[in-house]
Amino acid sequence: MTKSKKIDPLRIGVNFHADGTAKVRAWSPTAQTLAARVNDRFTLPLQKAENGYWQATTGKIAPGDRYVFVIDDEKAWPDPASLSQPDGVHGPSQAVNVCAFNWTDGEWQSPPLSDYILYELHTGTFTPAGDFEGIIQKLDYLLDLGITAVELMPVAQFPGNRNWGYDGVFPFAVQNSYGGARGLQKLVDACHKKGLAVVLDVVYNHLGPEGNYLPFFGPYFTGKYKTPWGDALNFDDAWCDGVRDFFIENSLMWFRDFHVDALRLDAVHAIRDFSPKHILQEIKENTAELSKSTGKTYHLIAECDLNDPRFINPIPKGFGLDAQWTDEFHHALRVSAGEPRQGYYSDFKGITDLAKAYRNAYVFDGQYSEQRHKFFGAKTDNPGRQFVVFSQNHDQVGNRMKGERSSMLVSFEMQKLMTAAVLLSPYLPLLFMGEEWSAPSPFQYFVSHTDKQLIEAVRKGRSDEFREFHSGGEAPDPQASETFEQSILPWKFSAEEPHQTMLNYYKALVLLRKTQAALSDPDRKATTTTVDEQAGVLTLFRRGREQDFHCLMNFSAAQLPNAFSEGKKIFDSADVLWNGPGTAADIIQPESIIIYQVSHV
Amino acid sequence: MTKSKKIDPLRIGVNFHADGTAKVRAWSPTAQTLAARVNDRFTLPLQKAENGYWQATTGKIAPGDRYVFVIDDEKAWPDPASLSQPDGVHGPSQAVNVCAFNWTDGEWQSPPLSDYILYELHTGTFTPAGDFEGIIQKLDYLLDLGITAVELMPVAQFPGNRNWGYDGVFPFAVQNSYGGARGLQKLVDACHKKGLAVVLDVVYNHLGPEGNYLPFFGPYFTGKYKTPWGDALNFDDAWCDGVRDFFIENSLMWFRDFHVDALRLDAVHAIRDFSPKHILQEIKENTAELSKSTGKTYHLIAECDLNDPRFINPIPKGFGLDAQWTDEFHHALRVSAGEPRQGYYSDFKGITDLAKAYRNAYVFDGQYSEQRHKFFGAKTDNPGRQFVVFSQNHDQVGNRMKGERSSMLVSFEMQKLMTAAVLLSPYLPLLFMGEEWSAPSPFQYFVSHTDKQLIEAVRKGRSDEFREFHSGGEAPDPQASETFEQSILPWKFSAEEPHQTMLNYYKALVLLRKTQAALSDPDRKATTTTVDEQAGVLTLFRRGREQDFHCLMNFSAAQLPNAFSEGKKIFDSADVLWNGPGTAADIIQPESIIIYQVSHV
Repeated sequence: MTKSKKIDPLRIGVNFHADGTAKVRAWSPTAQTLAARVNDRFTLPLQKAENGYWQATTGKIAPGDRYVFVIDDEKAWPDPASLSQPDGVHGPSQAVNVCAFNWTDGEWQSPPLSDYILYELHTGTFTPAGDFEGIIQKLDYLLDLGITAVELMPVAQFPGNRNWGYDGVFPFAVQNSYGGARGLQKLVDACHKKGLAVVLDVVYNHLGPEGNYLPFFGPYFTGKYKTPWGDALNFDDAWCDGVRDFFIENSLMWFRDFHVDALRLDAVHAIRDFSPKHILQEIKENTAELSKSTGKTYHLIAECDLNDPRFINPIPKGFGLDAQWTDEFHHALRVSAGEPRQGYYSDFKGITDLAKAYRNAYVFDGQYSEQRHKFFGAKTDNPGRQFVVFSQNHDQVGNRMKGERSSMLVSFEMQKLMTAAVLLSPYLPLLFMGEEWSAPSPFQYFVSHTDKQLIEAVRKGRSDEFREFHSGGEAPDPQASETFEQSILPWKFSAEEPHQTMLNYYKALVLLRKTQAALSDPDRKATTTTVDEQAGVLTLFRRGREQDFHCLMNFSAAQLPNAFSEGKKIFDSADVLWNGPGTAADIIQPESIIIYQVSHV
Repeated sequence: MTKSKKIDPLRIGVNFHADGTAKVRAWSPTAQTLAARVNDRFTLPLQKAENGYWQATTGKIAPGDRYVFVIDDEKAWPDPASLSQPDGVHGPSQAVNVCAFNWTDGEWQSPPLSDYILYELHTGTFTPAGDFEGIIQKLDYLLDLGITAVELMPVAQFPGNRNWGYDGVFPFAVQNSYGGARGLQKLVDACHKKGLAVVLDVVYNHLGPEGNYLPFFGPYFTGKYKTPWGDALNFDDAWCDGVRDFFIENSLMWFRDFHVDALRLDAVHAIRDFSPKHILQEIKENTAELSKSTGKTYHLIAECDLNDPRFINPIPKGFGLDAQWTDEFHHALRVSAGEPRQGYYSDFKGITDLAKAYRNAYVFDGQYSEQRHKFFGAKTDNPGRQFVVFSQNHDQVGNRMKGERSSMLVSFEMQKLMTAAVLLSPYLPLLFMGEEWSAPSPFQYFVSHTDKQLIEAVRKGRSDEFREFHSGGEAPDPQASETFEQSILPWKFSAEEPHQTMLNYYKALVLLRKTQAALSDPDRKATTTTVDEQAGVLTLFRRGREQDFHCLMNFSAAQLPNAFSEGKKIFDSADVLWNGPGTAADIIQPESIIIYQVSHV
């Protein structure tokens, strides 16, 4: 038997046909019998099929019905591929006709990645409503800001209703408290109507610690490899194909049934797979096949901490992913902005490294890392559109002990400089919700587990984690509802000063990037830098066909003479327009950026 | 600091200069202080150098001196890179001037891999002497047999003096009871003088369970990955560079200081490394660099159970290893010869799979394996010279419960057929010591540990292992000296019948392979097969420029009509010359092979 991957036959869980019947399918190679118990009223036996699958086609299940799978006539568990968990992770699954949605985005086509300006948000804290409907109400605002893609932190069902999303345990079920599958479909449709792309964060490297019933069905995990979260997902050990199919189908589902434009694949460095074909490559190939059949473009963006271009190189040279996050740009930028060099920041030297990040994407491409205790990284010549950069994101903010945004750490002027450093880069800029108006609130780490031992372990884990970073103060209690509530964006301040000015500043820079081809040019050779280490000034040159942009960034606290005279000064973050200290032709203000436009003859 | 790998600076342990002084170097990134305690008389402090190394140059150490390393002024351990352990694995290390050997092989150059006909032997049981000197006495015999390369099972120092070698714990020290470093150098020099290449089996995927003091020096192992032997060697976690250097230098040492022609890298599938550059590729690159400086050719041959051509594809497409073992050829051949389809044999169907192995090297190149419970393998179009095949080897014999050779399992006729199947293949044939005269003794699994708990664990492990394979009988006690003694080749029988005839038979086939270009042609397209499943006959066609060879192999127990009429019959294993039942033009005898030579017009 040779493996041939088809898109439709892979569907798992409960899937409705056009005629109203449903195909019920589960993977459990270790089960002797498997049946669906529906509405606690009747039992539907599944027939054994190839490769550990069980299936049945039935007219007896309707959308909305609740069901569990009964293994060996003994124990009952929710469906690993459940599309809905109306009573949370420990309750029964619910059948959903995921195809029964009236899409209005037939004409929609995702923009090319190079046009992506990403806005990362957490559904539960982006608005007081804390759900997809809340986001829909904000779409005009986001459109006005100028971003082109909404990136949702993970929405797979997690325990309780307060979680970043990385503790999800039902990869196919959309969090019920966010609005479930239907709510997400509505949101994506609304985004597309406004012209916004949607990126969804998905976690294929671990499952959360509470409500993970997958091991009862089969060897989803393997002791062959360890991850920070325990045994690794089984992508290459015995029975791995069912697990591979599970995540391949998951990635296809979001594109096919939810119309998302891109997936952000969480922490792919923690995916352990020594198969001849890496699971990420197999996901890419299946995505490409789906793309052919739907005529839509889909992007795969990895979070990857390996500085290894194999992930983003085209097949067969690499796994073929379209882009990756680059934390090192952030680290270099933040140290340039005065962050103490402790923890993972200790490897970064400030503007010299930031300049390297502008030119090479990876700061470490073979040097010794004192922090990692090894030579780290490889050379990359991949184009700029393959890298996502940011000055803030959920991790970089929320994984500080107190979850401080830049607004609570650096001056208003420095915030403006950092933003410009991101938006003028040859990479794909990502903003973290609220940074555009310098939201004064924290984004903290929060959970809502029910298992007491686990709650204690998470509390302890958090406070241990910060020994390295912070000497004083207490970490907020991740389990406390206040920790979550403090993290909800306080929009009431956004219309006040200096928030309104910051918002205008962001809009101006986003617009500049969108209207000047040289600024979103992903060609590496079009970007050069000079660094005056002593003065603390980095100059970024972005070259275009008709004009160049010279960006002088003063990361120092000193007012410096500005001898730069080429071209036309078109932007100064120190302008009083942006609540700055004011400008003059021959100076560059502390913590400020000046942009010159130089036209070719 | 950028990493630049040089051959000489990598030397670790105690290495003597031409002026008699010695450089002492150890890697211990976790030590606060490190010193060498010499002859229990004086202490030589080492200075801290880069990347966790400690070193000193001294005139106070002479070859023959014994020493230990003292960490943090507290505990003393033998040198991980020790070249000699005169008192075994728990005793002190001994300084050896590994460069002070009068080599006489200056003109020697390894044959190309395609000329290799390998003879695998275990130093301890190949001769009653059980050492390198014993092998030297047999070189004329081996030359007469016609093999071109002697392959030594691992010789790194192991506990006691009875061990296959895979429990080695000092990768740089040559087993003292075999004759140590000097003994190995003498053997290699003698081989080269006779025109024989030397292949050395080295283990880079684990260390043995007794006498492994490496963890006291630093993070040689990582809990990130698990292997069948516990935590994996640390090739990609924090501090991995010292571990990588250790094994890179080890591979270089065997080529540079011991003049071996090839390394057989044990079980590379158990090496876990997600670095941008795999450790095997780094070993290959360093070997190639050494080759440039010495002008000699070095080969790297992997034992690999992954059916993934990435290991043997050239850099950058793959890791660049020169060849790999293919157990699947053996499994298919053995099932063809009547082996019950249990354990790992259950995946193999006999001559159909053997035919596939002849054409494709991998039997599984993407099919579902019931034994592995997953789709397994990838396509390969690598040439035949990249694959090593055998009908017996130390594992396939010794990992049977009672260590039975083919001589104890199948008829004399079938032994002859199996041998021919190997020697006529388009791959590199490997013989296992003694098979050439159908030695009637077993090759069993034996150890000589001193740790009682370990001894019990090994005993239990062995008997558990055979539940799957054998229902009756007891596994021999691995720790018992009789188990070892029974495995020593009983050469006294070799001059008797039918052993003498078998030896002549082997010589004839080896000679045929060596003299007929078509038979060692590694071009895949020059090999085709036909299979008569019903009759049990596989016909192998080897095409040459001037003539072809058609090899009819009858694996059945029936005498069959032979309608084959093309060309000239040049060989029939059923000939009375080979103690067979006799031949006739129109029949093919049970369990026999007939070879036809077909000249091109």
